Amino acid sequence: MKRIERVGAIIKILSDCPNKPFSLGYFCKIFNAAKSSISEDIQTAKNIMNTMELGLIETTAGVGGGVKFVPYISDKNAEELLNYLCNKLKESNRILGGGFLYTSDIMFDSNVVKKAGEIFAKKFKDSGADYIATIETKGIPVALMTAQMLNLPLVVLRRESKISEGSTVSINYFAGSSERVQKMSISKRAVTTGSKAIIIDDFMRAGGSVKGISDMLGEFDIEVTGIGVMITSTIPKQKKVKDYTPLIYLGEVNEDDKTIDVFPNCQIFCKKDL
Amino acid sequence: MKRIERVGAIIKILSDCPNKPFSLGYFCKIFNAAKSSISEDIQTAKNIMNTMELGLIETTAGVGGGVKFVPYISDKNAEELLNYLCNKLKESNRILGGGFLYTSDIMFDSNVVKKAGEIFAKKFKDSGADYIATIETKGIPVALMTAQMLNLPLVVLRRESKISEGSTVSINYFAGSSERVQKMSISKRAVTTGSKAIIIDDFMRAGGSVKGISDMLGEFDIEVTGIGVMITSTIPKQKKVKDYTPLIYLGEVNEDDKTIDVFPNCQIFCKKDL
Repeated sequence: MKRIERVGAIIKILSDCPNKPFSLGYFCKIFNAAKSSISEDIQTAKNIMNTMELGLIETTAGVGGGVKFVPYISDKNAEELLNYLCNKLKESNRILGGGFLYTSDIMFDSNVVKKAGEIFAKKFKDSGADYIATIETKGIPVALMTAQMLNLPLVVLRRESKISEGSTVSINYFAGSSERVQKMSISKRAVTTGSKAIIIDDFMRAGGSVKGISDMLGEFDIEVTGIGVMITSTIPKQKKVKDYTPLIYLGEVNEDDKTIDVFPNCQIFCKKDL
Repeated sequence: MKRIERVGAIIKILSDCPNKPFSLGYFCKIFNAAKSSISEDIQTAKNIMNTMELGLIETTAGVGGGVKFVPYISDKNAEELLNYLCNKLKESNRILGGGFLYTSDIMFDSNVVKKAGEIFAKKFKDSGADYIATIETKGIPVALMTAQMLNLPLVVLRRESKISEGSTVSINYFAGSSERVQKMSISKRAVTTGSKAIIIDDFMRAGGSVKGISDMLGEFDIEVTGIGVMITSTIPKQKKVKDYTPLIYLGEVNEDDKTIDVFPNCQIFCKKDL
């Protein structure tokens, strides 16, 4: 195989499995090439990703060393996504009454949640997490994409304990501005005591659900090392959790004027390092 | 930029957005290169994908023509996934009683559902569908990945009608071998009358859920042009739907011997064209 072919294939194979380490030997074998050639190819692939701001290719030297693709969305692309989301969310026909917005089309849009997952993966890449955790239903896509980008398992908490979840632990928690009691449950075999998790969800108002997930994980001595939400409302200002990263802020929803006040979390793309 | 750099970047950009057409002009602009060079680069990228069985790059000529990446999992990789799934599903500690198996770790594994999505995308690439439809919860990840691979929106039916779904249509249907009545609902704004959909779900026993989704879509004159499930049980033999594509067959679950009979759907990887 020619060098250009090896480099193209290396880019595809690595970026198909974000954060999964491949040994140099793996590529030597599939291309029937020497380690020195593969090393050069990887350096070329690395430069291409850097120049075009398409992500990072990281190599670790020594025995057991290898190479992996690390998603690293550019500030420009992150800003583009957040502006796109703001424009979508401003559509007046999303207003459902009671301050609710229709967002299912956005939360189930694979292209949107993939890029959102890249943003969260960039933000939380050094958090040392063992899992991504979310609660059904609308947070699952973005949580799954974040899990994919970080090469971590996804743990989905359920509203009801299901027979298919095996033995579960459940808690009651206060949800929403109305402070009504809701239930969530987790399969005991989905998590390991003493591990670390990142919580990802679609929407946060007062933070009751995220606090609930955090408390639930606390039952297993699982430390929460990051919280990411697609949208958070500006009201109430006081949330039940701290240190969360929203992509979009939702301000006033005026049902009379049919206007929706949304703005991006500029910190996502205004600082070089999140 | 050098040719090797353009080809590498083209592969990454195209494969990041499966089935999304890009104009040649787009690449001319970002690389500041002539159309003839970009055409050659795309041909090289196409050959690399072909040789390495990493997918297809398809070009359409003429005005408005362009280029796109079409996921096309190799028979070898499909067989590898199905064997992996069979080995995972055979683990005796998955047995939960009542013939149920714990599968959440598999259904929420982004690497597994991504490859499963590639298989369904290959199978249904010419189905002319406008959406992927599923019902919460465990089918969402594989349905999302299939949607991503085919560049289609995902529509998720809910068990309960939620205020955040806006105006909904609900039906009652018979689910499971016990034929209990369950409810599902769909947001009216999620679908358009007279369109086409592919149904993707995690598990099918008698096919009640899938039949329910199909009936629900029928309320909007939506034609079902494909049905894919990760796992189907061999019992009951008679399903409520026809023409479905399972990846894995689940046979007898023997709670005494702690054995689980599973086998792959060989048609997935034994025929060149599914």
